[in-house]
Amino acid sequence: MAMYTISQNIGAFGRRGELSVRGFTVKTPTFMPDGTRGAVKSLTPEMVQSTGVGVVLANTYHLHLMPSEDTVAALGGLHTFTNQTLPLLTDSGGFQVFSLSHINKITEEGVEFKDPRTGDIIFLSPEKSIQIQMKLGADMLVAFDDVVSLDEKGRARTLEAFERTHRWLERSIAEYDRLTAGMSDEERPLLFGVVQGGLDKDLRKKSLEIVQKSSVSGIAIGGLSVGESREEMHDMLEFLAPLYDDSPRPRFLLGVGDPIDLRKALECGIDMLDCVLPTRNARHGSVWVSGDTKMNLKSEVHALTTEVIEPGCDCYTCANGFSRGFLRHQFKVGEPLAGTLASIHNIRYLQRICEEFK
Amino acid sequence: MAMYTISQNIGAFGRRGELSVRGFTVKTPTFMPDGTRGAVKSLTPEMVQSTGVGVVLANTYHLHLMPSEDTVAALGGLHTFTNQTLPLLTDSGGFQVFSLSHINKITEEGVEFKDPRTGDIIFLSPEKSIQIQMKLGADMLVAFDDVVSLDEKGRARTLEAFERTHRWLERSIAEYDRLTAGMSDEERPLLFGVVQGGLDKDLRKKSLEIVQKSSVSGIAIGGLSVGESREEMHDMLEFLAPLYDDSPRPRFLLGVGDPIDLRKALECGIDMLDCVLPTRNARHGSVWVSGDTKMNLKSEVHALTTEVIEPGCDCYTCANGFSRGFLRHQFKVGEPLAGTLASIHNIRYLQRICEEFK
Repeated sequence: MAMYTISQNIGAFGRRGELSVRGFTVKTPTFMPDGTRGAVKSLTPEMVQSTGVGVVLANTYHLHLMPSEDTVAALGGLHTFTNQTLPLLTDSGGFQVFSLSHINKITEEGVEFKDPRTGDIIFLSPEKSIQIQMKLGADMLVAFDDVVSLDEKGRARTLEAFERTHRWLERSIAEYDRLTAGMSDEERPLLFGVVQGGLDKDLRKKSLEIVQKSSVSGIAIGGLSVGESREEMHDMLEFLAPLYDDSPRPRFLLGVGDPIDLRKALECGIDMLDCVLPTRNARHGSVWVSGDTKMNLKSEVHALTTEVIEPGCDCYTCANGFSRGFLRHQFKVGEPLAGTLASIHNIRYLQRICEEFK
Repeated sequence: MAMYTISQNIGAFGRRGELSVRGFTVKTPTFMPDGTRGAVKSLTPEMVQSTGVGVVLANTYHLHLMPSEDTVAALGGLHTFTNQTLPLLTDSGGFQVFSLSHINKITEEGVEFKDPRTGDIIFLSPEKSIQIQMKLGADMLVAFDDVVSLDEKGRARTLEAFERTHRWLERSIAEYDRLTAGMSDEERPLLFGVVQGGLDKDLRKKSLEIVQKSSVSGIAIGGLSVGESREEMHDMLEFLAPLYDDSPRPRFLLGVGDPIDLRKALECGIDMLDCVLPTRNARHGSVWVSGDTKMNLKSEVHALTTEVIEPGCDCYTCANGFSRGFLRHQFKVGEPLAGTLASIHNIRYLQRICEEFK
């Protein structure tokens, strides 16, 4: 059984804590890099570990389509498959179904969509998503939700998705309970329920109440960082901060990884965050340096710079003295090592914010 | 001053030894991976070191065009630039000028060619090549030669290039002597002279005699592995084996890295070899396994294989249990980590042949 204990309160709503799940102990707050297809892009497991992050995320949607949860299971499950000894969290696939696929049909039963690569018709439902995540061997699961994009303006569709998300939460929990019934506390993964409601505070409040009343062992905040303004996102995080109950459950903000947003999230009581931003930006030569500003390593201005990305930074890349001049050159000639070295810095940059939070 | 000492004779012509240069001690025989543009593609310096190789090669041609030897020098020289603590060898640029560029003019003075990227007219000569290599900060240099491709059938051109190579060797040595004049034995890099002569044994013998009579501290064999048959290459290596003199100089075979050819080269008294093959093949999913056979990691047959590339192999990738199934998946989804992991295996495969040579 997952256990979350607060070790220190910080400010009005922030906190430090420890999450125990399946024999792992995760210090929070923690950033969680996205190992979309099993591995964090171009990083070895040890490189990921060197950044200090407590958890790695893997995408259910991508792994279901290729190589399939059956293949991952046959290869020993996600940990053995990826050689990653950090705890692994899988998302539900919901966000990707709605953002990456051509959806054929959404019904009460689930979502039917086309595999963008093969054209195959794929069906995902709350039960199916939990089954996939269990088969992958994740340590932490996320319930499948009906995701509404910000452009779908219709109030009717928003309400429908909102209510369906909570009905689906019950089905996710039932399937999770069924599949974990025989498990010991040491074996049982953690399940996050997802709070939705877009930018509507009444809906958000109601959704949080429903999720908190359920038996899930973690609270996830979905549907932010999907195109709204920074002010809108921060406003919602501030709105939710005093509404969390006292139950010992970790709080996971989905898809947020800009340093400024991450700082705000921590102040508002969030414990865990994932995002592709640090690694995607890094592969394009964009790294964060103190003050949460972006530095473009491809720029001519770095051509003769012997300085590291950020003097004083303890990431592998900076601590080992890789100069901006070297990194610029490697980016210019298309050498993948450049993206690897920049990714390590960016993940460590976010994790340092988590570690220094006080 | 470079020093080569034989520690063990193996068979009729093979040997183990130690090369001392600029404070480094290199055990031979050793494979040398190509860090074409400064870094071995997609590998950190530590990953390269983990393969056990004694030297890393960097390409003068590529680094001269981008970012330029002046930039590398401004960034602290090749060691600081790449963060590589293993000794570094630069080639002369001759082979690349003749294989990758549009040549405008070859004269006694040098070669004029177009930079394929910018269209700029670039001039390389024996003096210029040595100056570039010295500025890069290499520990071992190679003299600039006039390279003739196998398709240039004309005997006149072959003879011209052959004779010019030896005149250029004298100029390379003179420039090397001039630039290293004030150096202590600890500072002075090693210079390899290049033996040419194509598949003509008389020319090869004469070329070897000329190079061995010169004051260079290493003997390089060029112009093989350029399109001739395996039998022709092996025949030439066997022909040269008894012709090396007793001077304590390391022997470097340029551009050879197929396991079968490498074994033959070691038997024929070669101490050092470089090749892009292990890393280039690896990036395409092709790895060597015992018996010197190639395994295609992209193949469907590996989809459910929990076995590592080569059970018993002590490379990072095999020793850490990355399964063929995982590697196949990573190749299928275009994840650069796959190429990194396969490259480490392939380099280690060649280095193991060197270490097990007896």
